[in-house]
Amino acid sequence: MKIVAAKKILKANDQIAEENRVRFNASGVYGVNIVGSPGCGKTTLLEALFAQLNGRLAPAVIEGDIAGSIDADRIDALGIPVVQINTEGACHLDASMIAAATDGLDYQAIDLLVIENVGNLVCTAGFDLGEHLRLVVLSVSEGDDKLVKYPAIFQRSHALVITKTDLLPHSNFNIERATSDMKRLAPDAPVFLVSALKGEGIPALADWLAARMKR
Amino acid sequence: MKIVAAKKILKANDQIAEENRVRFNASGVYGVNIVGSPGCGKTTLLEALFAQLNGRLAPAVIEGDIAGSIDADRIDALGIPVVQINTEGACHLDASMIAAATDGLDYQAIDLLVIENVGNLVCTAGFDLGEHLRLVVLSVSEGDDKLVKYPAIFQRSHALVITKTDLLPHSNFNIERATSDMKRLAPDAPVFLVSALKGEGIPALADWLAARMKR
Repeated sequence: MKIVAAKKILKANDQIAEENRVRFNASGVYGVNIVGSPGCGKTTLLEALFAQLNGRLAPAVIEGDIAGSIDADRIDALGIPVVQINTEGACHLDASMIAAATDGLDYQAIDLLVIENVGNLVCTAGFDLGEHLRLVVLSVSEGDDKLVKYPAIFQRSHALVITKTDLLPHSNFNIERATSDMKRLAPDAPVFLVSALKGEGIPALADWLAARMKR
Repeated sequence: MKIVAAKKILKANDQIAEENRVRFNASGVYGVNIVGSPGCGKTTLLEALFAQLNGRLAPAVIEGDIAGSIDADRIDALGIPVVQINTEGACHLDASMIAAATDGLDYQAIDLLVIENVGNLVCTAGFDLGEHLRLVVLSVSEGDDKLVKYPAIFQRSHALVITKTDLLPHSNFNIERATSDMKRLAPDAPVFLVSALKGEGIPALADWLAARMKR
């Protein structure tokens, strides 16, 4: 595991993002940017996805956090290459942090680079990191009104993953409402319902991701 | 209900925050800034608190959201004066938005001004709004590791309210861990455990708030 302090932001984000994407493309690496609120279950989703995709893909992960390496430790425990970015207060990852974090990465050994962004439903929406796909994660326990309240991040995502569906019996979350709001904000984005804890919905999401990477 | 677009940020935030506080003090209004992740239960907590404090206090509310007026509608339905700030993409409230939102407020008619910040565990930490008290809300469903991952906002709060304790049986949230992390980050801040849904813990929090206002 490598820890990078996110400090030297020199060039415009979009330009660096495009450079990242060119580098990923040249090496056949598919980039996925995972965004969502703090505690929506991004890391747990990744653990379940990687277990499901085991042997089919060679992933690496970049973890973005204000402080600490809790999530990177979890990925490290799976034997998956992981870089921890500590933003030291910054509320989102940007393309230059990804460029720094991937510096020295063995692109030949991987085909999927998952970037788990800082938990933030607002600020992460505006920053292209060079990814090919952006997944927004919303947990049942957050409530179904988040799409109306934080529209930009949903609008700019390629799929919505609704997590913690095992909590549906203890919640007033309305799947219909969230799905129809997503349809309005991002008409082409599929909606996946998953309980990473119970493994439900993970195979469908994994298959979709694997198919998407081949396009 | 009044809707204010947050645009004209002219003076340094801290100066305006101090002006807000002077204005609140002159009118005997106590300001509370409520921060936490999207969907941590801030509005539901407020609904329960206001029901508990009914008749003891005269509150007004400022709701901060990127878009929409879902939360303000809920407060409005309680017959409590409410101003909706739409930040139009901004990830936190700042002191000038509060100055604009309170312009024309009947200070004589209220003694408690609750500001529900934008759902964001990062960016809201850095902005003094002129409040007297900052409450940070963390829901059980977000996980007990948030204090380590987002330390600043916990460090700068006067109390931690752990919400959705009714979900404890369905979660691996460790109350001990969160409480001891809060003790380390903010030694003087009490920790309240509440289930707004079941009304549990609300009387203790309401009493503490009412006592704090009299100090």
